[in-house]
Amino acid sequence: MLADRLRIVLVSPEFPGNIGSAARALKTMGLKRLCLVAPACDPREEAARAMAHNAGDVLRDAVILPDLRAALAGTVFSLAATGRPRRQGSPYLTPPEAASRVVEMAGAGEVALVFGRESSGLTNEELALCSMLTSIPAAVEVPSLNLAQAVMVYAYEIHQRAIQPAGGGGYEWSLATHEELEHFFERLASHLLAAGVSPASTMPNYVARFRRILARIPLEPRDVRLLHNLILKDRGVRPTDLED
Amino acid sequence: MLADRLRIVLVSPEFPGNIGSAARALKTMGLKRLCLVAPACDPREEAARAMAHNAGDVLRDAVILPDLRAALAGTVFSLAATGRPRRQGSPYLTPPEAASRVVEMAGAGEVALVFGRESSGLTNEELALCSMLTSIPAAVEVPSLNLAQAVMVYAYEIHQRAIQPAGGGGYEWSLATHEELEHFFERLASHLLAAGVSPASTMPNYVARFRRILARIPLEPRDVRLLHNLILKDRGVRPTDLED
Repeated sequence: MLADRLRIVLVSPEFPGNIGSAARALKTMGLKRLCLVAPACDPREEAARAMAHNAGDVLRDAVILPDLRAALAGTVFSLAATGRPRRQGSPYLTPPEAASRVVEMAGAGEVALVFGRESSGLTNEELALCSMLTSIPAAVEVPSLNLAQAVMVYAYEIHQRAIQPAGGGGYEWSLATHEELEHFFERLASHLLAAGVSPASTMPNYVARFRRILARIPLEPRDVRLLHNLILKDRGVRPTDLED
Repeated sequence: MLADRLRIVLVSPEFPGNIGSAARALKTMGLKRLCLVAPACDPREEAARAMAHNAGDVLRDAVILPDLRAALAGTVFSLAATGRPRRQGSPYLTPPEAASRVVEMAGAGEVALVFGRESSGLTNEELALCSMLTSIPAAVEVPSLNLAQAVMVYAYEIHQRAIQPAGGGGYEWSLATHEELEHFFERLASHLLAAGVSPASTMPNYVARFRRILARIPLEPRDVRLLHNLILKDRGVRPTDLED
């Protein structure tokens, strides 16, 4: 079930061999859903198939999408893997923590693990679309891990967690989807712009501060509805109006 | 210090790209000693350098040796990574257990982590030379992990353990070297042959049973001396003669 609910998203991968290697790592670790966002190379090239070895099915079934937003559609939780901590003040999950969270959240719906370009990683805009960030502690920054090696580490950690699941808390999460959250953040940005708290040029950074806070907690649809109410009632709101 | 004491041994690697990828994985995880046993390809090929990325120094400093015995010379502990459990009745370490053991044993001397050929792994003779076995739990046997991916998993786990070392037990191990142990096993084989307990053809398998038992415990030089005494005094030995 985890394998059905987890998308491994590669954003604009540049080398077919890395796509193939990633497919092999996924299949060996019991995962299968590969999602390629605007690939910068042809994933059907011989190098991809050669590196995929016997994971040709994972490669063949890979979904190609135009942008990260499309790749995250329907997810309730997404993790962006980055080479090093970049978003200041954000909590960074280690791979074991990331794996535990992915397994946990997959109990509530579709989840995604997102990797960036070999050359330049994920853009700040792409990072902002994801729920949380994760990074592999490395001894040296250069050379960073190869894309397929990073996929390997996470696939490995997720498999370890999935075959020996931690005891569940007993609570059945019903989590808000990516679209529900994005819809909220868009409305929030419009609202803040109209309220004049920040100019349009710096609004994405401003909204990012809210994302950071909200991303740390699993939000249920009723939580998001509550947040919407916050915007609607903003002018005259008092704390006591916000109880669910 | 761990990096100085840990040899990553690749036995007859067949693809230069895998050697380069392994070098990159090692360097990123703070390791550096690559040891190539009778490589079946040219590790100086362009594909190796390309995959090594900025880990060219690890690749350049790689030591090339004729056989595994030479690569294990001077080690006090060695771990063989295999694709799946093969040696019946032997304890298999998971990667986290293997990493903990490597870090622990490196406190006592030189250690080695041994990987086999891409196509066929390690031979039974090579496995028998190593202290213990380790295997990466996988969801499926085919495709197995690529050689460099397996190196990645172990380098990653070792780095995690090395940066957050478990509290040491306080005991300063002084461990027997590979040569001391091999010398003992050779004498044991001669002795058993002379005693007629097993014909020469099956002697390696017979001795392997002893290896299995002894490999589970860290042997100190005085332990090995004791074992030698066991052979010398065999004919008339009584249990009470064996106290150290």
